[in-house]
Amino acid sequence: MKNTVNQSIMPKTAVINENGHLQVGGCDVVDLVEKYGSPLYVYDEETVRSACREYKEAFSAYPDTKILYASKAFLTQAMACIFAQEGLGLDVVSGGEIYTAYKAGFPLERAYFNGNNKSSEELELAIDTGVGRVTVDNFFELALLDSVAKSKETTVKILLRITPGIDVHTHEYIKTGTLDSKFGFDMTQLDEAIELIKEEYSNLELVGLHAHIGSQIFEIAQPYNDLIEVVSKQFALIREKHNIELTEMNVGGGLGITYTQVDNPPSMFELAEVILKAFNKCNEEYKLNSPTLIIEPGRSAICTSGVTLYTVGSAKQVPEGRKYIAVDGGMADNPRPSMYQAKYHAIVANKANETATETVTMAGRYCESGDILIRDIELPETEAGDIICVFNTGAYNYSMASNYNRVPRPAAVIVENANSDIIIERESYDNLICLDKVPQRLSCKKPEGVL
Amino acid sequence: MKNTVNQSIMPKTAVINENGHLQVGGCDVVDLVEKYGSPLYVYDEETVRSACREYKEAFSAYPDTKILYASKAFLTQAMACIFAQEGLGLDVVSGGEIYTAYKAGFPLERAYFNGNNKSSEELELAIDTGVGRVTVDNFFELALLDSVAKSKETTVKILLRITPGIDVHTHEYIKTGTLDSKFGFDMTQLDEAIELIKEEYSNLELVGLHAHIGSQIFEIAQPYNDLIEVVSKQFALIREKHNIELTEMNVGGGLGITYTQVDNPPSMFELAEVILKAFNKCNEEYKLNSPTLIIEPGRSAICTSGVTLYTVGSAKQVPEGRKYIAVDGGMADNPRPSMYQAKYHAIVANKANETATETVTMAGRYCESGDILIRDIELPETEAGDIICVFNTGAYNYSMASNYNRVPRPAAVIVENANSDIIIERESYDNLICLDKVPQRLSCKKPEGVL
Repeated sequence: MKNTVNQSIMPKTAVINENGHLQVGGCDVVDLVEKYGSPLYVYDEETVRSACREYKEAFSAYPDTKILYASKAFLTQAMACIFAQEGLGLDVVSGGEIYTAYKAGFPLERAYFNGNNKSSEELELAIDTGVGRVTVDNFFELALLDSVAKSKETTVKILLRITPGIDVHTHEYIKTGTLDSKFGFDMTQLDEAIELIKEEYSNLELVGLHAHIGSQIFEIAQPYNDLIEVVSKQFALIREKHNIELTEMNVGGGLGITYTQVDNPPSMFELAEVILKAFNKCNEEYKLNSPTLIIEPGRSAICTSGVTLYTVGSAKQVPEGRKYIAVDGGMADNPRPSMYQAKYHAIVANKANETATETVTMAGRYCESGDILIRDIELPETEAGDIICVFNTGAYNYSMASNYNRVPRPAAVIVENANSDIIIERESYDNLICLDKVPQRLSCKKPEGVL
Repeated sequence: MKNTVNQSIMPKTAVINENGHLQVGGCDVVDLVEKYGSPLYVYDEETVRSACREYKEAFSAYPDTKILYASKAFLTQAMACIFAQEGLGLDVVSGGEIYTAYKAGFPLERAYFNGNNKSSEELELAIDTGVGRVTVDNFFELALLDSVAKSKETTVKILLRITPGIDVHTHEYIKTGTLDSKFGFDMTQLDEAIELIKEEYSNLELVGLHAHIGSQIFEIAQPYNDLIEVVSKQFALIREKHNIELTEMNVGGGLGITYTQVDNPPSMFELAEVILKAFNKCNEEYKLNSPTLIIEPGRSAICTSGVTLYTVGSAKQVPEGRKYIAVDGGMADNPRPSMYQAKYHAIVANKANETATETVTMAGRYCESGDILIRDIELPETEAGDIICVFNTGAYNYSMASNYNRVPRPAAVIVENANSDIIIERESYDNLICLDKVPQRLSCKKPEGVL
């Protein structure tokens, strides 16, 4: 795009067309809103597939690398199909994610089931659908999974999740490698866990370790060096003490992305360079048997492919204060500004060539003062009916969306080569009430009293 | 209950039964989990109805008071029926809330439609379903509503929402009365708005003003005094300048509740005393014509009636650190700890008589370190299968719930006199994917490549 917006915050196919409109995947986004309604999540297929391919290319120097897409960022059946076609695996964290991938026909032998509190029903579903690995988080789960596996007369290949004790400078909510974490075994507990697996849990086969240091990470060198050092050392200790040669090292995900123009995260190639250098060094130092290297990108694999289109409604000029423009979505379709004080960039999609002339605050439609999508952004003059495109909403937007204020969740479309296809239908009012039940004794079809 | 927990944080019918279990509405909550599954939202009908009646009683000294329940706190069809039966009105903020109430048979002439960015479709729905009043938030909406009303050849009774410029010491996200707010007309804009209504918007009939100072308010005297003073003065000015005798004064909601033992909010009787005293004083001072007084309680009308039952799964003792217990729900069914750093109290419902012996941190099941429901709470020793009851989850829990991690949302039951009835069915995995579409070209039913 010819304007000054940092290209890395938008889908690869984003251009301004001859109407001065933003176009993504060859589709004029104004037409998309007309066809599918507003608000609308739009995913650019080329950007998703490129991210998959770039991750594979970035790690191609170590061919035994598995790239698992972290489903929690955004998963639908259509997305599962794309990741299947691109040869990625899946990091799944619930029965619902397993079910979604299963129904899509995703080859679940490529899936790793993570999470700090899996239920026995979910573990059963994982076994029944052929999920490849379970990353066991704690002692309770070791016993539970072994018992489920026994009841199904099968052996489950597992990794153990460990808390590596690494502090990453990121938002407190998404820091997971420190010792005081709900996730994983403390390293002092590993010996006991492995003894239990060897002595008691005969339906579990330990194949590797998993560690994850956090999310939206910008400084990668030291944390990933430390992480791989810590995990590799455990590989050596486990071989020495327990005579088990682990074959899988899962170092998690966490690469940050460019949400706004001031962010400058490393590329996936830089990440791969850091990880592979540390991995090769440790492989040699600890005489590891070249285990499979596993990474779990979520946000960095999907976020930039997604944008959200909103329509401007009302506006409010506070005398001698802020100008607010209100859009038809907000904190329920994108809870990240409220939940993490996340910052986003946006443009007026139908005035993509126009110069910014005013500073406005983009408010959502939800009945809460905190429902502000972007504070103090420079835009061309907006009016009701304008289409706002918020960039980088591909991750943790739909996946965290609610029906707050009983507003139906938006539709999602995927665009490619001037085609657009629905991947999630827009919720209807009837969808909102389809699980509602009114006990007979409460029925108010003949209301008593009047206002 | 005989233990030391502050009674005001729990439903009115909460007792410990002969099995040492928590009982609500005459139902043993352990049985409820067995019957309906876990996690489970439980609403105590007596507590809901009591709150409605107490609000009416508290304001009975001024009979022309309307109590509108703020639907955004929690609305289902069954709840709408209860509020209808109790003679309350509804504060609705979306087409979805209107639709829910309408389908329940709620008498919508008792509903007030609020919000900063209502769409024309929502305004049409409001008119078609006979919503009693629309609270117009801004100039754009005045024009839009008049145009919708004209197209339907009807006149709509409206209030104007104003920003009263009152600063309440509460969480930043839920502070709405300050001048820099997305909501409402600045008072300097009122004359222009009223001139427009008189001169141009012939299908709008101005009947009152609406102002709201925030949520979870604990110090009520000064803010509500100021609020009523500010609004009453506008009533007098509008009569003087525009010769309009307004008949409705809506002072919003906002009363805080006791989430944990340290909270000590005023009662609704204290709130009523403050409001009525200020109202009567201003009524006299500004020679108002005794307008209808309207209040909009949400949280204080519903929150305490609701509890969430979770089942304990895994546990993790950080060596020389925290003990974590994990439950089968978390940030997706209760986003308030993550979103507002909200604090909750809980007990082990099947060990309700047992003395607390350990300090634990109650983690959720969601794949995020920030998914912690309660930090450092004292509980009896817990084990897998124990039922945890988190109190005061009746407001802004289900209504803000998401499918994060693609976990189905819990069921909700209402209990009364030893009966329990489903009011929201548990989501199924099929519910999660019912709006998914896979474009033909993406189908991966025959996956390529293997792990």
